[in-house]
Amino acid sequence: MTEITETTPGWLSPEELRSARARMPILYVDAVPVRVDDKGTVTHIGLLLRIGADGTVSRALVSGRVLYHERVRDALMRHLEKDLGPTALPHVPATPQPFTIAEYFPTQGLTPYHDPRQHAVSLAYVVPVAGDCRPRQDALDLVWFTPQEASSPTVQQEMTGGQGILLKQALAHVGRLP
Amino acid sequence: MTEITETTPGWLSPEELRSARARMPILYVDAVPVRVDDKGTVTHIGLLLRIGADGTVSRALVSGRVLYHERVRDALMRHLEKDLGPTALPHVPATPQPFTIAEYFPTQGLTPYHDPRQHAVSLAYVVPVAGDCRPRQDALDLVWFTPQEASSPTVQQEMTGGQGILLKQALAHVGRLP
Amino acid sequence: MTEITETTPGWLSPEELRSARARMPILYVDAVPVRVDDKGTVTHIGLLLRIGADGTVSRALVSGRVLYHERVRDALMRHLEKDLGPTALPHVPATPQPFTIAEYFPTQGLTPYHDPRQHAVSLAYVVPVAGDCRPRQDALDLVWFTPQEASSPTVQQEMTGGQGILLKQALAHVGRLP
Amino acid sequence: MTEITETTPGWLSPEELRSARARMPILYVDAVPVRVDDKGTVTHIGLLLRIGADGTVSRALVSGRVLYHERVRDALMRHLEKDLGPTALPHVPATPQPFTIAEYFPTQGLTPYHDPRQHAVSLAYVVPVAGDCRPRQDALDLVWFTPQEASSPTVQQEMTGGQGILLKQALAHVGRLP
Repeated sequence: MTEITETTPGWLSPEELRSARARMPILYVDAVPVRVDDKGTVTHIGLLLRIGADGTVSRALVSGRVLYHERVRDALMRHLEKDLGPTALPHVPATPQPFTIAEYFPTQGLTPYHDPRQHAVSLAYVVPVAGDCRPRQDALDLVWFTPQEASSPTVQQEMTGGQGILLKQALAHVGRLP
Repeated sequence: MTEITETTPGWLSPEELRSARARMPILYVDAVPVRVDDKGTVTHIGLLLRIGADGTVSRALVSGRVLYHERVRDALMRHLEKDLGPTALPHVPATPQPFTIAEYFPTQGLTPYHDPRQHAVSLAYVVPVAGDCRPRQDALDLVWFTPQEASSPTVQQEMTGGQGILLKQALAHVGRLP
Repeated sequence: MTEITETTPGWLSPEELRSARARMPILYVDAVPVRVDDKGTVTHIGLLLRIGADGTVSRALVSGRVLYHERVRDALMRHLEKDLGPTALPHVPATPQPFTIAEYFPTQGLTPYHDPRQHAVSLAYVVPVAGDCRPRQDALDLVWFTPQEASSPTVQQEMTGGQGILLKQALAHVGRLP
Repeated sequence: MTEITETTPGWLSPEELRSARARMPILYVDAVPVRVDDKGTVTHIGLLLRIGADGTVSRALVSGRVLYHERVRDALMRHLEKDLGPTALPHVPATPQPFTIAEYFPTQGLTPYHDPRQHAVSLAYVVPVAGDCRPRQDALDLVWFTPQEASSPTVQQEMTGGQGILLKQALAHVGRLP
């Protein structure tokens, strides 16, 4: 995933980030964008279509780092706006309690999550999105899936690093695991 | 609290409800209406001003029974609309997981919650409300309090049956307990 | 499921229970018994082998009614002891917050859960069990499954009323959904 | 708080840690040690008595960093054993979901939490402890308080950096906020 350029004093240069990633767990947020009906029931899950550095196509959740001196809530909003555009109208939950944490290790098999670049620990949230989504940056498209489709083998196989599992955990949390 | 008239077959007559209340735990929902800012942080809590059967004035959460064959989500919406009016635009959480359960016993002291009429077990939710609130029925008014005010002794003393504690648990859950 | 005989004043006769079941949601608890390692990771899930009234064999979670004037925590302990025996040493969670609620309707399709006898709303908990389990009453046996096995089609098909889904939600909650 | 010496390759030297702390959020865990009765109800909360670098006496939760390539669950166990001794028998919850996250900022007032050294984001858990606690290292003593005592002004004033608030949030989560 492309990192945004960070020039604010106190943030990390690319080399420093590379170094930190080999030494410390890096704090992330993962957001599962959903559409809900007027009673709050989740009807659809939004997945980003991404092209990786090696050209492979994959579907992904909204995900990214928490920066120095940034609140988790602000990091969530920043990544949602970056990936879904400025008119998505995300409703970040009132509680800071994540529905789970995902521990991405550079070594495979320790947990269901894997990130070859780093040890990342991600706070995962389900975020209802009320507005119009226009993916930006490195995402090609945002596609809405029903819970049934999102947990199907076809979609699950297009998700990497264990995000398919994280998506199913989100569906379980909202009572929509098929 | 005034019960709505229930004439649908399968529901309870007033005598049957009275009888059931002496024999079984009755399923309730409690909703804590909140205002949130554009990042989801709770800024205000809405409390109903009620006049009890004995003329005492009290502040209360949105609360009521779940009916036969009614989904919890539908019961929440019904009680929110009944108490806050049709233009309140409540955002019921996507997850069915309550932030806590409140066990109201007719006997005092077993739990922090007390209801002289019955043994009620209530599923408690924090519900962001985006629209215009116009209390109806037996509620005189809805007043918005800051987290600081809502947990102050003044407001706490105006809440009955342990709802002041439930309100503080809600504030803790959203990270706003002062 | 066989109901225990309830003769305490204030509880329901069989006819009253039958009547109440046609008129009100009935409060239940569901417990998913698990084995954990010394760091709290779930390694196995315990499922009861039951024979239904019609002779069908099925696997089931620990489940049962909350009685009048009984705390949810006491109901959990009572059903765990009834189904797993007196030496199971269950560790009921410190928080009263269930990981989800399961809404069993007599009508199929409204939710993933179904109970032809009644509208039951169940508070669901994952309960680590440290001792020796000896099923009693109507359960023939308790079998421990790995998370992989418990979510396999074979085991899922032996669970009824949507309890297979509830089991998968429990696995998701503890980070063990395969 | 004294950091343990970390000589495993990939971990940070003291200078590197100092540098990282000025550039990135540091991942922490906070554990609230509790005693529970045989039904899981929290009866007491354990607080460490610490003497800070400047000689001030304070009461504290079990707290510390998550290291590179360390699971959150392992970090919790490591800090619990470090602070409570090897015979404490902590029961780390089966779910990885923290009851809240505490965001400690070097700037005061952004959140209820403050750490002059760093921006730390802590995953907070309630951990029942069944064994014998013998504080080690820099903790002088471990004292058990009732929920009433733990949330009293006296104890709250002896807690720093917002940990008094975090303790009250833990009490709210287990239904024991007085």
